[in-house]
Amino acid sequence: MNPVLVIMAPGFEEIELSAPIDILRRLDIPVVTAGLNGRSVEGAHGITMAAEMLLVDVDPEKYSGIILPGGPASWTLRDTPAVLTNVRKMHAEGKLVAAICAAPIALEAAGVLKGRKVTCYPSVKEELASAAEVCDCPAVTDGNIVTGRGPGAAPEFGFELGRYFGKSAEVEKLRGDMCYC
Amino acid sequence: MNPVLVIMAPGFEEIELSAPIDILRRLDIPVVTAGLNGRSVEGAHGITMAAEMLLVDVDPEKYSGIILPGGPASWTLRDTPAVLTNVRKMHAEGKLVAAICAAPIALEAAGVLKGRKVTCYPSVKEELASAAEVCDCPAVTDGNIVTGRGPGAAPEFGFELGRYFGKSAEVEKLRGDMCYC
Repeated sequence: MNPVLVIMAPGFEEIELSAPIDILRRLDIPVVTAGLNGRSVEGAHGITMAAEMLLVDVDPEKYSGIILPGGPASWTLRDTPAVLTNVRKMHAEGKLVAAICAAPIALEAAGVLKGRKVTCYPSVKEELASAAEVCDCPAVTDGNIVTGRGPGAAPEFGFELGRYFGKSAEVEKLRGDMCYC
Repeated sequence: MNPVLVIMAPGFEEIELSAPIDILRRLDIPVVTAGLNGRSVEGAHGITMAAEMLLVDVDPEKYSGIILPGGPASWTLRDTPAVLTNVRKMHAEGKLVAAICAAPIALEAAGVLKGRKVTCYPSVKEELASAAEVCDCPAVTDGNIVTGRGPGAAPEFGFELGRYFGKSAEVEKLRGDMCYC
């Protein structure tokens, strides 16, 4: 399968980036990270991580979907036209469109959440409520839209992404291997 | 307070590095990362993160304790004399000595686990059993020794470290803020 694209914007929540990527790669689902403005991106809590490519070089045709980690980066993602364009193109082809924490605000800005059931960080619930049906689940899938609630739900978001790609049995085994209850 | 030192060896488990650092910094507990051989260190699942300094430049006098993230890095940590020396020096002064997943094998090699209650990744339980009292808890504190079980327990390990540093009330609030149940 083509890799899934993860967008790294400055101020990303480190757990929301590392947990889903870690889990997807353990499930043999390929992932590529793309930095918004550079190949070295500092997270919200001072951990700098390397992006494998730049967003400007992304051809959305070559990916199975897009994942937006949240944290303070969420507002930057929402306000970056190239992010919204990639989200819209992936969505138009029915590919995975995923976001966690406050990052679903970027999906809402891209206009892809209409009538969808989603979850998000509590502080942005109101912002999404006019477009989507917002719940308090750790992670939820509605069609091609997968959303997660916050850093504490980052592993559940990762497991939900694994199930989205048809790896339900492997997810159950992995939970044990990784010492999740 | 002096910062806590986190050692980054190639093949570290990304969740076990990012979750405790993220949580400690949210609790205003300063953390510094030190790379074993370089300032750019690749984790077990291909995420490269930046170390803030090199292990060779560490003066153990200047830190409040040491944390060893696990994953395949655990065996490298165990086999690196400079890591064991730092662990022994911190331990001799009664400072925090912490490890998660398979990394408690490095604490055992440093000779600091005798008779202590610890937890670890199930596959290395036997290796620690002759020295320590090994349980299956997500995270456990015995005196200055704090241990965690595996990636799924990384947040609990982070919260346990926060409580070790006297932030029990802040930990309870943070669990909610981060959407942990």
